Amino acid sequence: SMHILISNDDGLYAPGIRLLSEGLAKHCDRVTVVAPDRDRSGASNSLTLDQPIRVERQGEGVYKVYGTPTDCVHVAITGVLEAEPDMVVSGINAGANMGDDVLYSGTVAAAMEGRFLGLPAMAVSLSYGREGPRHYESAARAATILMRRLVAEPLPADTILNVNVPDLPWEEIKGFETTRLGHRHRSENVIPLEDPRGRPFYWIGPPGGEQDNGPGTDFNAVRKGYVSVTPIHVDLTRYQALDQVSHWIEALNGEGAGEE
Amino acid sequence: SMHILISNDDGLYAPGIRLLSEGLAKHCDRVTVVAPDRDRSGASNSLTLDQPIRVERQGEGVYKVYGTPTDCVHVAITGVLEAEPDMVVSGINAGANMGDDVLYSGTVAAAMEGRFLGLPAMAVSLSYGREGPRHYESAARAATILMRRLVAEPLPADTILNVNVPDLPWEEIKGFETTRLGHRHRSENVIPLEDPRGRPFYWIGPPGGEQDNGPGTDFNAVRKGYVSVTPIHVDLTRYQALDQVSHWIEALNGEGAGEE
Amino acid sequence: SMHILISNDDGLYAPGIRLLSEGLAKHCDRVTVVAPDRDRSGASNSLTLDQPIRVERQGEGVYKVYGTPTDCVHVAITGVLEAEPDMVVSGINAGANMGDDVLYSGTVAAAMEGRFLGLPAMAVSLSYGREGPRHYESAARAATILMRRLVAEPLPADTILNVNVPDLPWEEIKGFETTRLGHRHRSENVIPLEDPRGRPFYWIGPPGGEQDNGPGTDFNAVRKGYVSVTPIHVDLTRYQALDQVSHWIEALNGEGAGEE
Amino acid sequence: SMHILISNDDGLYAPGIRLLSEGLAKHCDRVTVVAPDRDRSGASNSLTLDQPIRVERQGEGVYKVYGTPTDCVHVAITGVLEAEPDMVVSGINAGANMGDDVLYSGTVAAAMEGRFLGLPAMAVSLSYGREGPRHYESAARAATILMRRLVAEPLPADTILNVNVPDLPWEEIKGFETTRLGHRHRSENVIPLEDPRGRPFYWIGPPGGEQDNGPGTDFNAVRKGYVSVTPIHVDLTRYQALDQVSHWIEALNGEGAGEE
Repeated sequence: SMHILISNDDGLYAPGIRLLSEGLAKHCDRVTVVAPDRDRSGASNSLTLDQPIRVERQGEGVYKVYGTPTDCVHVAITGVLEAEPDMVVSGINAGANMGDDVLYSGTVAAAMEGRFLGLPAMAVSLSYGREGPRHYESAARAATILMRRLVAEPLPADTILNVNVPDLPWEEIKGFETTRLGHRHRSENVIPLEDPRGRPFYWIGPPGGEQDNGPGTDFNAVRKGYVSVTPIHVDLTRYQALDQVSHWIEALNGEGAGEE
Repeated sequence: SMHILISNDDGLYAPGIRLLSEGLAKHCDRVTVVAPDRDRSGASNSLTLDQPIRVERQGEGVYKVYGTPTDCVHVAITGVLEAEPDMVVSGINAGANMGDDVLYSGTVAAAMEGRFLGLPAMAVSLSYGREGPRHYESAARAATILMRRLVAEPLPADTILNVNVPDLPWEEIKGFETTRLGHRHRSENVIPLEDPRGRPFYWIGPPGGEQDNGPGTDFNAVRKGYVSVTPIHVDLTRYQALDQVSHWIEALNGEGAGEE
Repeated sequence: SMHILISNDDGLYAPGIRLLSEGLAKHCDRVTVVAPDRDRSGASNSLTLDQPIRVERQGEGVYKVYGTPTDCVHVAITGVLEAEPDMVVSGINAGANMGDDVLYSGTVAAAMEGRFLGLPAMAVSLSYGREGPRHYESAARAATILMRRLVAEPLPADTILNVNVPDLPWEEIKGFETTRLGHRHRSENVIPLEDPRGRPFYWIGPPGGEQDNGPGTDFNAVRKGYVSVTPIHVDLTRYQALDQVSHWIEALNGEGAGEE
Repeated sequence: SMHILISNDDGLYAPGIRLLSEGLAKHCDRVTVVAPDRDRSGASNSLTLDQPIRVERQGEGVYKVYGTPTDCVHVAITGVLEAEPDMVVSGINAGANMGDDVLYSGTVAAAMEGRFLGLPAMAVSLSYGREGPRHYESAARAATILMRRLVAEPLPADTILNVNVPDLPWEEIKGFETTRLGHRHRSENVIPLEDPRGRPFYWIGPPGGEQDNGPGTDFNAVRKGYVSVTPIHVDLTRYQALDQVSHWIEALNGEGAGEE
C-alpha cells in the first residue's frame, strides 16, 4: 500500500500540482495534497516560526495551508495526516529548478523537508520556454516512473532527487540522465526604480547566464531533451573542506583564542 | 583596504548586528550594514521576486531593507553599494545555528548569498541558554579573528564558514574547533490549536533533540566551550551519490523512457 | 449602456462574487470583476502605499489584484480599465456586515472607494447562520433589483448603500427595509495564548452581542426576513457636533493657545 | 488619577509617538504605549482576524504589537492592560490626516477603536511640508492641552477628535479651530510599471488636489496656522438620507420583492 504526499510552491490552484496528483494517483493507493494557499515561489526552506499556521481541509485528501512549502510538508507529516505517507513528491513546478537557482526554490525545499522528516522525496519541475508551459503530462509521467522505481529500489535515505523535465511531448523525450547542478554567472544587477514619493526600490534582476552548463549538468541534459535527475543532499557540511579548514584553524588556536 | 558587508536575520535593530559592526569596524577600513527592517528568522534563502524591495538609507553606511536576509545581501552587492565589498559577515544571530537547523537559517542564507555573488562569507551565531544572550562581545571577537585570518589566508571560494560561539566570557572560551553539522532527531509534532471560530491552526513544534552530537560535531564543540567553525557549501549536488543514481537510472532508460 | 465593476473582500475565488457577477451580467451590458487574490476580510479601507500592486488579467473582464479591496477598486477605476464603469457593486460577502462591524469591512470599503472616485456604489452581504451560507442567489437577486433601481433613479452622490440579505429562499424574503446601523455591546475580551516558546499572543475575541437592534436597525430588518438597506456616508465629519466642539474649543483659545 | 493609552500607525520606533508620550506623561499619572512593530500607514481600521497577534512587552508601560493600529488598541483595552485606561490618544502622525484621507488613516483608526471600546479618544497629526517634520513638540503641546480639556469637560461619547497641527514653533501657532473635513479632487491615476518579467504592476498615485478647502475646513485652518480640531463619528449611518432612501425603497416593495 503506497501513500504519496504531494506539495509544491506555486500553490494549490496551480495546474502542475493537479496534473501531478492525477498522474500519481493512477499508480499508488492514496495521494494526499497539502499545498500553499497561493504562489510561494522563491520561499526556499523558510519555516513559519512566528505565528501558527492555518490549515483548511478542502475535500478528501486535499489541504490548503496558509504557509510556505516547507510549512506544508512539516504540518502534514508531523500532525495533520493520520497516517504517515511513504514518500513526498513536490511539483510540478512551472519553470525549471536547475543550477544555483535550486537554493531559492520552494519546490525543492518541500522535498527536502520530507527527507528531513525521514521520507524519500523528489522535486519535479517543467523547464519551459517562451511559449509558456505546455507538456505538464510529460513531467507527470516522468514523476510516476521515478516514483515506482523508488519504491522498487530505494535510494540512500539522505538523498533526494531533483528532477527537471523538458517541455516536450513524451515521445520526444530522449530518456533520463543523472546530472550534477550546473552553475550560472553572477546574477544581473538589481533594477532600480522610485515610488511616486521618490523613495528607492529595487527589483531583483534576472539570473545570470549559464556558466557551467556542459556535459553532466542539469542544464545540458534538459537542453538535449533528457529528463535531468540530480541527487541533492540536505546536509550542508562541506566534508571535503574539513581538513583544510582544520589546518587553517590550527594557526588561530596556536595564537591563543583567549587573547587577541 | 578592507570593506566588510554586514547583514543578519534578526533585523537592523537587533543588538547582535550592532556589536558585530562595532567589533569589525576596529579592524577594517570600512563597514557597511544592510539588514532587514525586522526579525526575519526562519527566512532561509528566500528571495523576493514578486515585488520590488524598498531600501532606506539610515545614515553613513547603514541601510534598512524591507526584505529577507538574502534580499539584503543581493541588493547591496548588485546595486546599492557603489564599491563592491571584500567580504560578507552575517550575524551575530541571537541563538545557535547548528545541525539541521542551518537549512532554515536566514543568518546562514545571508552568508551564502554573499558567496553566490563571489565573495568570501561567514555566518556568526551566539549559542545561549535559558538566561538569554549575554556575551555578544565574545562572538564579535571570534568573528574579528576569523575575518582577519580569512584576509591573510583565503579559503576556497566555494566554502563559507558557519560559526557558532558559546555564550561565555572570552577568557572562558577554549579555542576554535573545525566541525561538521550534527543532526537532530526528527522534529517534534506540531501543536494544534483552534481559533475562536473553531478553525484549525498548528504551531511548528520545537526541534528534535540532538541525535548526532558526538565529537566532531558543532553541537559538541560548543558544549565543550569551543567556537565551532563548520565549512558549508552552496552547491547542493550530492556528488557521492552520482554513480549510484546513474546505475539506478540506467534501468529506466533500458525500459525505454518514451514508453511506460 | 451599463457597465458594472464588481469587487469583494473574500477574494476572486469566493462563491459570492461569482454568483453576483452572473446575476448582474443578465441585466447590464458589461460586467468587470476586479478582486483580491485571496481572502482579505477585515481589511477595512486599507490602501497599499508602500509597494506597487500586481494586477493579473485572468480572462475577459476578470482581473486578480494582489492587494486589498480598496486597492482593487482604486486600480480598476484609475488605471486598469479602459472605460470607466457606471457603478461599483461589492460582494456578495459570506457573512453579514451590519452594525459596528461595518467599520472593519473590506466589502463596504470597496464600495466606499468607488464612491470616492465618483461612482454610485453598494455593498452586498449574505447574513447566514450556523449551517453556513446557502442562498447567495437571493442576495444576487436583491443586488440586481437595487442596481436597476439605482440606474432608473439615482441617489445623492455622497451616499452608498450597505445591503444585508437574510439567508432565505427568495420567496421567503419579505421585502426591502431602509435601516440605520445597529450597535453591539463592547467586543468580548481577547483570548490569550502562548506559542511553544512561551511568547504571548492574543486572538481578537468575538464581537459583542447586539445592544441596539430594535426596530429601524439593520439587525432587526434581517432578523425579520427583510433585505436591509442602509445609507452610508464616506464623510466622517460629525456635523451635529460642530457647534458643541466650537464652544468647547473657544475656552482654549481664550486661554491663549500660544501659552500653556 | 489619569491613565492614557497611546498608539499610532507609524510604529513604535517613530519619533512622533515618543514625543507624544513624553509630552502627555508630564500631565497625567500614567501613560501606556501600545504600538505596531513597524510602519502601518494606510492600514485604516483593519483588524487581524485570521491569526493571533503577538504582543511583546518592551519595558514598563511599553508594548510592541505585531499588528495594525486597530489591533494595538483592541488588544490593549480588552486584555493586555490590567487597568482600563481613561483615554486613547493616537499619534503624533508624521503627516497630516485631513479631508478624504482620514478614511485610510491608521492613526485615526486607532482613536476610533478606543471610542468603540468606550473611551474618549483623539488622533493627532503633524502637517508638514517639503523640509520634513520639525515641530513635533508643538503637536505634543496641542495634544496635552486638548487632553486636559477633555478631562475637565468631556465631549459626547460618540465623538472623537481628529487634530491636525501645522509644523510651526508653538509661538507661531494662532490657536485652535473647529473644522469639518475638506474634500479632495479625485485621486490621480495609478502609475503603471512592469517587473523585470514583464508583469504589470501599479503604484497608487498621489491624492488629488484640494477641492473643498475653504473656510471651515481642516485644510484651511492648518494653512492659516491654526490647530484644526474635527469631530469625527464612528457611526457610518447617513441619517440625513434615511427618508430619501425610504421613499426610494418603497417603490421596490410596491413592485413586490418576492417577484422580479
